[in-house]
Amino acid sequence: MSEHYDPRTFQALTFHDKVPSFLDGSDTPRSYLEQCLETIAEREPEVKAYVVLNEDGAREAADASTQRYKDGKPLSTIDGLPISIKDLLETKDMPTQMGCEAYAGNFPTNDNAAVWALREAGAVVLGKTVTAELGGSHPGPTTNPFDPSRTPGGSSSGSAAAVASRMVPTAIGTQVGGSIIRPAAFCGNVALKPTQGGINRGERQATSMSTHGPHAGCVEDMWQVAIEIAKRSGGDRGALGLFGPMTAPAAAKPDTLIVLETAGWAMLDDKSKIAFEGLLENLQRAGITLLRRVDYPLIEKLEQTIVEAPAITGNITPWENRWAQRNLVNLKGEFVSERAKATLAKAEAMTPDDYRAAILDREAAQRAHAAIGNLADAAITLSCPGPAPLWPGDIQGQPLAPRPTGDAIFNTPSSMLFAPCVTMPLMSVGGMPVGAQIMGQQHEDARMTAFARWIIDEIDPVLVD
Amino acid sequence: MSEHYDPRTFQALTFHDKVPSFLDGSDTPRSYLEQCLETIAEREPEVKAYVVLNEDGAREAADASTQRYKDGKPLSTIDGLPISIKDLLETKDMPTQMGCEAYAGNFPTNDNAAVWALREAGAVVLGKTVTAELGGSHPGPTTNPFDPSRTPGGSSSGSAAAVASRMVPTAIGTQVGGSIIRPAAFCGNVALKPTQGGINRGERQATSMSTHGPHAGCVEDMWQVAIEIAKRSGGDRGALGLFGPMTAPAAAKPDTLIVLETAGWAMLDDKSKIAFEGLLENLQRAGITLLRRVDYPLIEKLEQTIVEAPAITGNITPWENRWAQRNLVNLKGEFVSERAKATLAKAEAMTPDDYRAAILDREAAQRAHAAIGNLADAAITLSCPGPAPLWPGDIQGQPLAPRPTGDAIFNTPSSMLFAPCVTMPLMSVGGMPVGAQIMGQQHEDARMTAFARWIIDEIDPVLVD
Repeated sequence: MSEHYDPRTFQALTFHDKVPSFLDGSDTPRSYLEQCLETIAEREPEVKAYVVLNEDGAREAADASTQRYKDGKPLSTIDGLPISIKDLLETKDMPTQMGCEAYAGNFPTNDNAAVWALREAGAVVLGKTVTAELGGSHPGPTTNPFDPSRTPGGSSSGSAAAVASRMVPTAIGTQVGGSIIRPAAFCGNVALKPTQGGINRGERQATSMSTHGPHAGCVEDMWQVAIEIAKRSGGDRGALGLFGPMTAPAAAKPDTLIVLETAGWAMLDDKSKIAFEGLLENLQRAGITLLRRVDYPLIEKLEQTIVEAPAITGNITPWENRWAQRNLVNLKGEFVSERAKATLAKAEAMTPDDYRAAILDREAAQRAHAAIGNLADAAITLSCPGPAPLWPGDIQGQPLAPRPTGDAIFNTPSSMLFAPCVTMPLMSVGGMPVGAQIMGQQHEDARMTAFARWIIDEIDPVLVD
Repeated sequence: MSEHYDPRTFQALTFHDKVPSFLDGSDTPRSYLEQCLETIAEREPEVKAYVVLNEDGAREAADASTQRYKDGKPLSTIDGLPISIKDLLETKDMPTQMGCEAYAGNFPTNDNAAVWALREAGAVVLGKTVTAELGGSHPGPTTNPFDPSRTPGGSSSGSAAAVASRMVPTAIGTQVGGSIIRPAAFCGNVALKPTQGGINRGERQATSMSTHGPHAGCVEDMWQVAIEIAKRSGGDRGALGLFGPMTAPAAAKPDTLIVLETAGWAMLDDKSKIAFEGLLENLQRAGITLLRRVDYPLIEKLEQTIVEAPAITGNITPWENRWAQRNLVNLKGEFVSERAKATLAKAEAMTPDDYRAAILDREAAQRAHAAIGNLADAAITLSCPGPAPLWPGDIQGQPLAPRPTGDAIFNTPSSMLFAPCVTMPLMSVGGMPVGAQIMGQQHEDARMTAFARWIIDEIDPVLVD
């Protein structure tokens, strides 16, 4: 069932371009939904993207949307858009089980702020997609749509795979370290990890770096989902929220990009390095100036701070999660993975001063990032350290694989910097997708979206076999 | 049962000064606890401070503490300290009902981060104290220990009253607008509202201004509770947490204080104004210089920003609470007060831009506060607009009283500024306590504690009949 991935020919499922046909009556959101359900029926046995589907509820919502288009009164630019929700977020009509057996059958019947906003905008909430356990690294059953022996990435595994397999045009993921951008990059999606606090997390406040963000088949759908949510539910508590226009910003060519290596550079496989260097050449050929660390002390300084991002974020997030996880383990420890327990043990060995030191490191990195703000239009780097790794499952009696959903090493910098980034499906390595990401200063989400749109439209992708 | 309040003669229950007798074996934490339980038996029928008591668990904890002192190995400076927990915070051994019928019988069996830290430090968690519904303004049954026809304040009603009636030396409260400082001031306690993020809220992230803080009978106990928690569970997610020494900072005399009027000045009753002016005279008589708005444009500027604090915080907090409250009302609306529903309706009429504007106003006020940082050692103002108001209860068929637990008008400034403040029981008006508070720059919690200690020790209280 799986396909060899070629970014030049792969056709992602899109929505925004179907709206004219809904308005003129030549097509309907209901028939669009049926197409999604057919694809799900076909691909889901292998991909395993969903925890639960609400087909009846989705058909009802799509019919209501169809009627609104007939009446010439769609609720928003995403009225009728089928969307899937990562199973960390609560939904009033489906259980919320967070990839953890301790939450089996958990059904709080609440709508998360983002889900609520999506329904208000007329979107069709179709199902809950698989998350790695509690948003951590213990994988769920989902496979990579382009090779079922590989991970789709995590923790937004199901959201990434559902979009990549054309089951839905869009899905909501969440990121703390690298959980939107990495799976999107492993699966050939576009995705936005917004400025920290850009999209209201509602009751699920989680950690100081967690964000909600859309996976999509195209930049236009990605932006519309993000901004229609932000219009209705705003940003996180205490944050200004996502800024930007109510329709996807026009493609814009960046003049100058900073090439960031990050800690990931040292562990990149040769083919992926060749692919990325090829992509950089294509950007230069299009007249874009690239700045590198060797020529600019401030870029070198930023590289020095973000090379510590995996360690810094690896201290911050487990510490912030430890109450929730300790309480869960105390109550239902037999249903929590050994992988999660090992992370908890690490966090519980920390002191408040260890955490405080990590927060100061994070703030220093943010200042180093702000300092390069007017050197260039944006920064570019890989979204993942090569193609999605093989994941044969844990082997009884063997040590646990440390990163079964792949390594977030290229993602922890933007998470730590609170910086917006967009991943673009511009490379294929060994027949698998590898993404590149563009990253801006805080609140430049719309600007990064405009650059991503231009780069995807104008720059030749790179294939390395 | 109630007493006419005289700050010169009222003897609050204290703990720190009993520790030597635990160490030399002349007294024990168990017998200290029994004294608390006797007072509770005597006062609770009128004061109604508790939702639930865990006498057996407390006795067991006190016995364990007694043994540790016998062994010469107390766990901390608060080993054996009886403490009560506002019923918004989860406790593994008591239900968590949040003053809301919708949560009747709710028993998640988790320990909040602060509660966990208290137990690790050897404190004796004695009971859950009444909170106004969901930490809002709909009152619980607690009465003011100095006059049962009056409110104890809210939302930390039970915590304030339990300390004021000598049932326990300390209790944990929480503040978003004014819910630690106001009830403490109405009840003659000392209390610390820490720098925002000072004490880890654990899973209960709540809103962008919510804080945990201790009520106590003396500054020493107040500080020890705060710092022993902070030592173990640190600050909030993303925050640096409470700074300071591991024993209560020595009394320190401030040289210069800024007198802040706040929006509360205009609504202050004559007697309370006379009392506060009398207190200011006593400070000047002790050689402390007072700065006022008329002489300093930067103080005037700060006054202009904080005069809007009630409106700004009144937009921010209900907006941040609206998902939790909407979900609750959808599920169990018949068990939620009309007062809470009215607040929800107001929040749901706001747009993300309304919220964003309030956040910008808050940031502007914080900059105005930072700008006065080196004008003086601290700022001083009242902690409440006069003595606790009468609260006869809602009257069927009549409009709901807007602020049955009193007005937070003197508290929203420090909440909005994320600034630490300590309330000091220095005035009696009409036989009821009225507090004054000292407020510093962010992270000056220990410094404000040192000033509060000096002022309480050295400055004559003021009585106005």
